[in-house]
Parts: sequence; structure tokens; C-alpha cells
Amino acid sequence: MRRSRDVPELVAAAREGDPRAVARLITLVENGDELVQEIAAALAPHTGNAQVIGLTGSPGVGKSTTTTELVRVLRAQGHRVGVLAVDPSSPFTGGAILGDRVRMQQHATDSGVYIRSMSSRGHLGGLAAATPQAVRVLEGAGCDVVLVETVGVGQAEVEVASLADTTVVLLAPGMGDAIQAVKAGILEIADVFVVNKADRDGADATYHDIQGMIGLGERGPGEWRPQVVRAIASRGEGIDDVVAAIDKHRGWLVERGELRRRREARAAAEIEAIALGRLRARMGSLRAGTALPALAAEVAAGSTDPFTAADTLLRDMG
Amino acid sequence: MRRSRDVPELVAAAREGDPRAVARLITLVENGDELVQEIAAALAPHTGNAQVIGLTGSPGVGKSTTTTELVRVLRAQGHRVGVLAVDPSSPFTGGAILGDRVRMQQHATDSGVYIRSMSSRGHLGGLAAATPQAVRVLEGAGCDVVLVETVGVGQAEVEVASLADTTVVLLAPGMGDAIQAVKAGILEIADVFVVNKADRDGADATYHDIQGMIGLGERGPGEWRPQVVRAIASRGEGIDDVVAAIDKHRGWLVERGELRRRREARAAAEIEAIALGRLRARMGSLRAGTALPALAAEVAAGSTDPFTAADTLLRDMG
Repeated sequence: MRRSRDVPELVAAAREGDPRAVARLITLVENGDELVQEIAAALAPHTGNAQVIGLTGSPGVGKSTTTTELVRVLRAQGHRVGVLAVDPSSPFTGGAILGDRVRMQQHATDSGVYIRSMSSRGHLGGLAAATPQAVRVLEGAGCDVVLVETVGVGQAEVEVASLADTTVVLLAPGMGDAIQAVKAGILEIADVFVVNKADRDGADATYHDIQGMIGLGERGPGEWRPQVVRAIASRGEGIDDVVAAIDKHRGWLVERGELRRRREARAAAEIEAIALGRLRARMGSLRAGTALPALAAEVAAGSTDPFTAADTLLRDMG
Repeated sequence: MRRSRDVPELVAAAREGDPRAVARLITLVENGDELVQEIAAALAPHTGNAQVIGLTGSPGVGKSTTTTELVRVLRAQGHRVGVLAVDPSSPFTGGAILGDRVRMQQHATDSGVYIRSMSSRGHLGGLAAATPQAVRVLEGAGCDVVLVETVGVGQAEVEVASLADTTVVLLAPGMGDAIQAVKAGILEIADVFVVNKADRDGADATYHDIQGMIGLGERGPGEWRPQVVRAIASRGEGIDDVVAAIDKHRGWLVERGELRRRREARAAAEIEAIALGRLRARMGSLRAGTALPALAAEVAAGSTDPFTAADTLLRDMG
């Protein structure tokens, strides 16, 4: 891999807001480059404070329009905003709908916004692993709010969405989304529901359906009750309410010590996944070594059993 | 779990041909019981010599009839035969076709045959892990030939089939099987093809199709060229030829040192899978320990990165 600059230099440039340095770092972590650990280590001192907002919903509910409007409101509040679009249907990831793409371009020259698509060409496990690193890059580059946009259809996307402090689920009238949301387990992960296209027929029904389902959920005193907000993102209506609901949720997270708890749980899952990946890699290099063939010959000959051989292998691994 | 007898006692009884002891041992390895290592260790001295024959093919090609006939011929040759049916459509595994089941009952009172279905209720990874242990139980019980019957439709079944020294793939006329076999990668794993129901229309076409595809494969001098045999298992016709083709393949395996090489490769894969399973289990207990929460807190706070934390975790794991 060609490298024009080394990691400390790239991180320093990113911290100064150089968009090419940010892009380069995200590409490196997205590809699982060998530099990923060095990058993470260089970024660590500058991370841990950004607010991470997940935004998910089926194709057609207006995710990109809502993202664009959220960026507008957050910018007006003085935030520096990063957007990671982990969504094959997103105009930001290449499956472009020109109208939306053009719309988002209103932020293209705003140096307080960094928009980046994450490729889902690789397997989603890789994407789920790369996304928290990409969030760190954006935070390192000075974004205090990072929006992660995903398509809420599969378990893997739900996992990516669950990287967020606050998860916003978008619904639209007449798409059977309220039911779909329950089926997909989205009701459990949503902190804020947005009924978008609220001027359309059936918007009230969708609003009341989702309120009804939230009402059915049991929760103890002080537990978060998901907020439901109506919006018409295409006209910018209701977006202030969405931001207010997100802020309310953040307030609850902080007050209850839940923000720290969630972030630590996320970090633990991330550490575990990395550790397991390393063990697999070690196992791969053991295959190339001498211990395994000798043990395999013993097992094949019946002079030991495969469980005892596995124990010996693990002892040798040290 | 209730245990009427301990492992050495069960293994001793199995070696004396007690079918209940054999059944009990297979159930224990199938369920991944904690005794599985003790069982494998007790069996090891009595294993490593049985001929393992894999038999696979789509539902409807006549696998169970062919298995029954193969058992008959092998018994006539003086072999003690074990049958493991890893096949949800097999009459031996419960999806019973009465005619076949009755037919197989001709061996039910023969103490030189042990027939056992492997449950695929659990996930197939578990089945793939349990099957070699079950083969060891049968070998320990004195079977010098073990037939493993699988449905050749999915990758997982192909893996189970690949446990065999010799893999026999059954085809039937007019099922598009020759093409399906190529698509499913079965051409690569088949050592012997059987065109069953050879009296039906299209049998010649199937025979020539598969011969043609074998002819297209490049192989160096001395490499095995898959044999193609015609049979009408329902009348017992051609089964001697199938056994002869299996014997010819076994002769080739031995002569080329390939039998040992294959068995060692299989043992290596088995050891690795067990070792990886143990590492995962250790990781699980680390989660319950104290190191991970502390590391997660550091990562969440930005005082270290997740990769360095993973390294620390692995060091602690020892």
C-alpha cells in the first residue's frame, strides 16, 4: 500500500480539519489496514466525548433528507458534525438519488461538516468492526456530533445502529413500518421514533400504532420511554423537535449514568471482537508451524484424542 | 445429566458390542456433553483404522436403498459396518419413508451392523463437530467400515461428507443432478459417482454428462480420476461395482500415501476447531472477570485504544 504520509502526520492533519487526511484515515480503517492499531492509538487521547446518533429506517422513509435537515439544525447550534452513511441505498454511498444528493450538497462547502459513506462491499462483520474506528477518526477531526445512517432492515444494520448513544428510527405512513419495526426488533433499540412525511394519509395511524406499541412495553420507574416525533423533513418541519427529543434522551443517559454504561459495554464488545480476531490469526500461523501437523498425525494414528491435542496446541500458543 | 455408568465402563461395554452402550456414547458426543473428552481419550487407542465412506446425493436419488445394499455387500465380505445417517430426509433420521425403513430392517437383527441417525436439530457446526466423534465410537465398537450418509445440497453437508476417506455421490437420471453437482462443488469432492435408477430414461445421458465433466477436469499423472458406476439399487444391481470402485479408490489412497495425508489434514482441522471453541469459551469467562470491564472503561474514556486493550486482555489470558 502506498503511503504518502505516516500516521502521526495524518492524524495531525486530520485534527487541523484537512478533509483529505480524514478521508485517508477512514479508508485505512475501513480496509482493516495494518496501520489501524497505530491510528486508533494516535486518536485515543482525542476521543470519548462525541455524541453518536444512529439514524435508521427502511429505504424510502426519507433518511437522507432527514439527515440533511438534522445537519442543518445541529450546525445552527454550533456543532461540528460528521456523517457516516452505512447504507447501500443512501445517496451518500453511491446508490445515488440525484435530488437528495444535490440537496445534501448544501453542506458540501461547509467545513464544519464531514460526510462519508462506508462501503458495504466487504462483509458486514468488517463494516461493524470498522464503523467505531471511523467514528473515532471523525471525533479526532473535531466533530462533536457524529450521525451514523444505516438501513434498518437486517440484524447487522441493527448492530451498527447500536453503536450510537441515541438511536433514531424513521417511519413513514402506509409502509407497514410500525409492524416491521416490531418484527425486526427495532422497538427495542429505538430511543426516538420519527414519523416522517407526517402530511401524508395514514400518518396519524402510524403515529398512534407506534405509541400503542410503546405503551405495551413494560418499563420500570425512571426507564426511558421512546419519544415519538412527527416531521416533514422535505420541508424542514419537525426537525427541531427531533433534535429536542435526542437532547432529552442524552440528558436522561447522562443523569442515569447510562451513557457511561453503554459506552463501556460497546468498548467491551469491541475489545472482545478484536481479541477473538487476533486469536484466529494466531491459530492460522500455528497451522503453518510444526506443532499442529505432529499433533494431527498422533490423532490420526489413534495415539491421542483431538481434545487433548487441542489442549497441547493451546499450551504451546502461550 | 443422569449417568448409569461411567465412561470406562461404557467404552468397555461398547467394545463388547453392547448396542445400548454405543447408543449412549453417540448421544453424549452428539450433545457435546462435558464427558466428550474423556470418551475420545478412552476410544483413541482403538481408532484410526476404520474405512470411512461418505455417501451423499439429493433427496430422491435412492441414498437409503443404496446404503442398505452397500451394507449387505460389505457384510457378505465379512466387514462389521456402522452407518451414520446425517440426513434430515433419511428414513433413519425420522423423516421416515416406511418402505425404506422396512427394507433397512433386514439388518436390524444383525449384530454386525450398527445404524444410527445423527440429529440435525442443533446447528450444523455442532453436527460437523460431533460426526467424527461418532465415527470413533463406532470404530471403537468394532466397526471396520463406517458409512456416513448426508444430503448433498448444502456446504455444511459437503463438509460432513468430506470426513470420509472415499466420497460416493449418488445421481439419478432426469434430475439435472449432473449440473447441480458441478454448481454445488460436488465434482471436487466426489471419488465415485453412482448413476442410480440406471434403468430409467435419461440414465445414459446422465452417465455421459458426468463422464464428460470429469473429462474436462485437469489432473496430473497418477491423480485419481473419479469412477462412474451405474446401479439399480432397488434390485441390488451394480452394488458390487460400487464396492469395487470404493476399494479401487482406497487402494489408490494407500498406494499414494494419500490416506494418511487426508486423515492427518482432517485431524488437524478437528484439533483447530476444538481449540478455537476453547478460546471462545475462555473469552466468555473473561467477560465475567474483572480485566475486561476495566479495559472497556479506559477505551470509553479515550485513555487507550481497543487494539491495545485487546492485546492486554490476551496477555492476561495466559
